[in-house]
Amino acid sequence: MEKRLITLTTDFGYEDPFVGIMKGVILSVDAGARIVDLTHGVDPQDIRGAALGLNYAAPFFPAGTIHVAVVDPGVGSARRPILIECEEAFFIGPDNGVLSLAAERKKVKRVVELANARYYLQPVSSTFHGRDIFAPAAAHLAAGVSVDDFGPAVECWTRLEWPKVAKNGDEIRGEVIYIDHFGNLITNVSARDLEALEGQKLAVAVADITIEGLAQNYANAVKDYAVVLNSWGLLEISCFNCRADQRSGADIGDPVHIRSAGQ
Amino acid sequence: MEKRLITLTTDFGYEDPFVGIMKGVILSVDAGARIVDLTHGVDPQDIRGAALGLNYAAPFFPAGTIHVAVVDPGVGSARRPILIECEEAFFIGPDNGVLSLAAERKKVKRVVELANARYYLQPVSSTFHGRDIFAPAAAHLAAGVSVDDFGPAVECWTRLEWPKVAKNGDEIRGEVIYIDHFGNLITNVSARDLEALEGQKLAVAVADITIEGLAQNYANAVKDYAVVLNSWGLLEISCFNCRADQRSGADIGDPVHIRSAGQ
Amino acid sequence: MEKRLITLTTDFGYEDPFVGIMKGVILSVDAGARIVDLTHGVDPQDIRGAALGLNYAAPFFPAGTIHVAVVDPGVGSARRPILIECEEAFFIGPDNGVLSLAAERKKVKRVVELANARYYLQPVSSTFHGRDIFAPAAAHLAAGVSVDDFGPAVECWTRLEWPKVAKNGDEIRGEVIYIDHFGNLITNVSARDLEALEGQKLAVAVADITIEGLAQNYANAVKDYAVVLNSWGLLEISCFNCRADQRSGADIGDPVHIRSAGQ
Repeated sequence: MEKRLITLTTDFGYEDPFVGIMKGVILSVDAGARIVDLTHGVDPQDIRGAALGLNYAAPFFPAGTIHVAVVDPGVGSARRPILIECEEAFFIGPDNGVLSLAAERKKVKRVVELANARYYLQPVSSTFHGRDIFAPAAAHLAAGVSVDDFGPAVECWTRLEWPKVAKNGDEIRGEVIYIDHFGNLITNVSARDLEALEGQKLAVAVADITIEGLAQNYANAVKDYAVVLNSWGLLEISCFNCRADQRSGADIGDPVHIRSAGQ
Repeated sequence: MEKRLITLTTDFGYEDPFVGIMKGVILSVDAGARIVDLTHGVDPQDIRGAALGLNYAAPFFPAGTIHVAVVDPGVGSARRPILIECEEAFFIGPDNGVLSLAAERKKVKRVVELANARYYLQPVSSTFHGRDIFAPAAAHLAAGVSVDDFGPAVECWTRLEWPKVAKNGDEIRGEVIYIDHFGNLITNVSARDLEALEGQKLAVAVADITIEGLAQNYANAVKDYAVVLNSWGLLEISCFNCRADQRSGADIGDPVHIRSAGQ
Repeated sequence: MEKRLITLTTDFGYEDPFVGIMKGVILSVDAGARIVDLTHGVDPQDIRGAALGLNYAAPFFPAGTIHVAVVDPGVGSARRPILIECEEAFFIGPDNGVLSLAAERKKVKRVVELANARYYLQPVSSTFHGRDIFAPAAAHLAAGVSVDDFGPAVECWTRLEWPKVAKNGDEIRGEVIYIDHFGNLITNVSARDLEALEGQKLAVAVADITIEGLAQNYANAVKDYAVVLNSWGLLEISCFNCRADQRSGADIGDPVHIRSAGQ
């Protein structure tokens, strides 16, 4: 039987040895650990961006995978380090919301504080809990330590407030929640949100532009914008051979309006 | 016996969780899969750059390695997903030429379309076949599915047209085909192309500069340009402690002329 | 028993397939090799930056780990390729100082030149010893080749001169030695260097700014600078939600003065 996988998501970037150090710590605890990088290119201290990425990536991993996310501007302060056990996955990181989207999507069974210093790397620094608390916890969990051993149950933990999609008659209002490496504008509007407009041609407005119709794929955009339902099931504005964010000037948090453009 | 290796080459970058998602899919199909990243820093939609990198990397992997390349501006359109079986390697990706240089270098045994939906991740999106078609195919192939099971044979598939080196008497004309992370200008002129000028001092002209003589290594360049035969066996213009691309203004596609500067 | 780990540190970046090629070479020699990336984002030819990262990362890896560092502006010239055997680790790379900080921190047992062509990948290029000499050496060492087989002992090898901390009465003078991905200014002043000022409030001056007091963690910085003892045990100037390097204008090599600001 294969060992549980451990995934890593951080804002540590790729220039420094910080991620490598976390892997060294994990492999020192559990020499057979299997580690997969989700991304270390989260914008510095962008808890929401990391939460979103983890939310859409976690479902594609085998049952029992341990997901570690370290985007942690409050490292060394009073914010707690936590472990969330779900039906089919574990989440480890600071209690600042970075784990919450992904964990709530799966069924949360219990949440514990990583309080047992026996599973810390000593001495614990006040600036790098990825190395001293989160990496060792993941490795010990993979090696078979039971969830209860890590610390006491936590009743209240931090959930991110996520922007809701508003529906007003036939008009749907969402917002841009993520911009990917290609400059695509990913919104919080899902396929389900669009059901009220089924069978109608959509008009999607963001920044100063309005795009009509839903494209089947990026290639359909040709030299212009296209709206697609992306691989996360979300409405996305893209541009063929250009960056939709730069061309439109739209940014994260900008409103997106969707209405019927007729049939 | 070790499992077949799976390598990944994409233009997905390092900020988003897309590559991590592909790895989750692979490891969900085949928990013991062994995955190596070639690069995910291909310029967005740069099929030729990815093809070139794969071409020079693939020969250094063990026999039987499965190479997956996803630079796929036509994702979701009519372009086919294919699997190429060669003498000592497999190549999986879109049929847009990204696999063709590397595959033709090895002996191609057969090409099949990835048409069998049994090996897709369902539901198949129209924007992320890396996740839904290519990653699962690689994992199933590594796990032992036979090539014929993936779909019907393909007779015509896409080869990249690659710029040829022209020889006119003692003059050789090539072009810049790749610029690496250090700013080195890599040309399509190989050691074999230079045989006609053997024993003579070379004069290599690109952009507004002319460099005389072939250097043994980068360090010989000192504070100026140098021409070397690089690790891919190609003529390369480099600059010690500076970027040859920025200093010379040369870019991909620029012509390179090589002639004798006397003996 | 698990195989020895091999870590990789280079300035090859993430756009090209060079790192992937090194992994292919390693896995061709030793199919069961286990490889961990420290970083490939070292600034081009920044031997000191790579040396520092390796120095602080190596102690967190299991005993017996093989660390390969390829920041090698002199590749193909007279500089020797070496293997350093320490009490609990091995270091492989060019003899230009990149290995020296990390190796001297552990107890050096012997140093050999990688002279035995039997463990080279042939033909050896003059521009990519990472592929042709260092990667194969690491793989053969992991596979059980003994240190003596790689070549003759080396008596004199290159150590980096590292800036010393100067103490003049109650004033301590150090300098900025590293700037991380978050823009934090890491100095060469350690907790031990500060013992003379124990119990006193510190005043830390760098560029045009002076910061008073030592913060427990980054979050304490609030909208201003903070001085912390970082996870490497070094004095670090950081800025909450901004980059300390850009805001202060300080750079690597800039002097840092520490004195008492009273009690």
